[in-house]
Amino acid sequence: MNDYKVLAFDVFGTVVDWYSSVRREIETVLPNVDADTFTLDWRDGYGPAMQRVASGELGWTLIDDLHRMILDSLLDKYAVDGLSEDEKVKLNKVWHRLDPWPDSVEGLTRLKSCYSICTLSNGNLGLLADMAKHANLPWDLILSAEVFRQYKPHPDTYIGVANVFDVPSSSVILVAAHQNDLAAARDCGLATAYIERPAEFGPPKPRDVSRRSENTYHANSITDLANQLGC
Amino acid sequence: MNDYKVLAFDVFGTVVDWYSSVRREIETVLPNVDADTFTLDWRDGYGPAMQRVASGELGWTLIDDLHRMILDSLLDKYAVDGLSEDEKVKLNKVWHRLDPWPDSVEGLTRLKSCYSICTLSNGNLGLLADMAKHANLPWDLILSAEVFRQYKPHPDTYIGVANVFDVPSSSVILVAAHQNDLAAARDCGLATAYIERPAEFGPPKPRDVSRRSENTYHANSITDLANQLGC
Repeated sequence: MNDYKVLAFDVFGTVVDWYSSVRREIETVLPNVDADTFTLDWRDGYGPAMQRVASGELGWTLIDDLHRMILDSLLDKYAVDGLSEDEKVKLNKVWHRLDPWPDSVEGLTRLKSCYSICTLSNGNLGLLADMAKHANLPWDLILSAEVFRQYKPHPDTYIGVANVFDVPSSSVILVAAHQNDLAAARDCGLATAYIERPAEFGPPKPRDVSRRSENTYHANSITDLANQLGC
Repeated sequence: MNDYKVLAFDVFGTVVDWYSSVRREIETVLPNVDADTFTLDWRDGYGPAMQRVASGELGWTLIDDLHRMILDSLLDKYAVDGLSEDEKVKLNKVWHRLDPWPDSVEGLTRLKSCYSICTLSNGNLGLLADMAKHANLPWDLILSAEVFRQYKPHPDTYIGVANVFDVPSSSVILVAAHQNDLAAARDCGLATAYIERPAEFGPPKPRDVSRRSENTYHANSITDLANQLGC
């Protein structure tokens, strides 16, 4: 049918709906803040925090710890006090308890019958393991920036997947809802599958999910990708 | 019930029956050699090969590559010629296709309902992922010496499991059929569970599987361990 052996998935936004999951918990734990903007601010802090690691300003730091640094600054910005340390630790781990999109578990289960399926996420291993248990994600292998000690879009991460499975990079498809992630994978010789997630940043901010010809596949869900791959 | 959060499993011999699986393939691929001694020789080469990495004589080397170095020397020792490179590559990957002991899948599935279950193996990630797919092993996370860049019994591997899951080492149980592995884990503060595998090295060489008081648990199978832990 085809020569692909491994499907490597971006996770946040592609497989799980971080916006709704985090927003719901913010509404419960911090009833006096605007949960929509707090959630988006938390996510917005993620790229710059990783950039501080990539630039060498920060030493190697796990996403759990970056999330906590951002959370602490947001609790300050939103003038939240009164959370105990245990409550902050628990809130920070909301990123371990993200719910899957409705098609994710069925789509992954079908794709697993045809290919090896793994994560390729900037999330740390413990976060991704907790999330898989929470959301019933049937990974064959959890791979993370933590294994390669580089964050995406560093080439070591994409090449690393091919090396771990001992296959050429052309036998790996990166599956993601983000064009920059796919472009970096393509530069390393991987095939690419774009998944439409128009509500990734919440219903108020629909995203451009139009088809781009440079991707190998374009699907409106993971089950749609399974259909296209005949699984 | 108890405060354990994570069960980390040794794999070769503890979860999978490498002897029968490798011997069966040797009998098919190399019908003119003594499959019993060839299998045991292959496994016997593994400790010294890892020791060459641990001592610094070899740089960091994956088990797949150590297995291949040993295989090449055994093909020479047993005067086997006529295998093509593709056939050698395929034979070397027999270690990716090991069958589980009869109790492993049920035992792991039950334990997974109570704890996070992971591997802690010197096998490389790709090997362990292929094996899990082959043998239906329901790991929450595959951890390997490859992640920590140290082979067991280096302390970084045992402490590494606790760090990945962000728990104290006393919340982790190392589960293994080998007393030296358990002793090293105990030195790092982990609890220990010994699993009896008297036929690990084949029926002709039964092993001493007697109870030792220093282990937290002693079980005759992974299902027995699940019984003792109430899962």
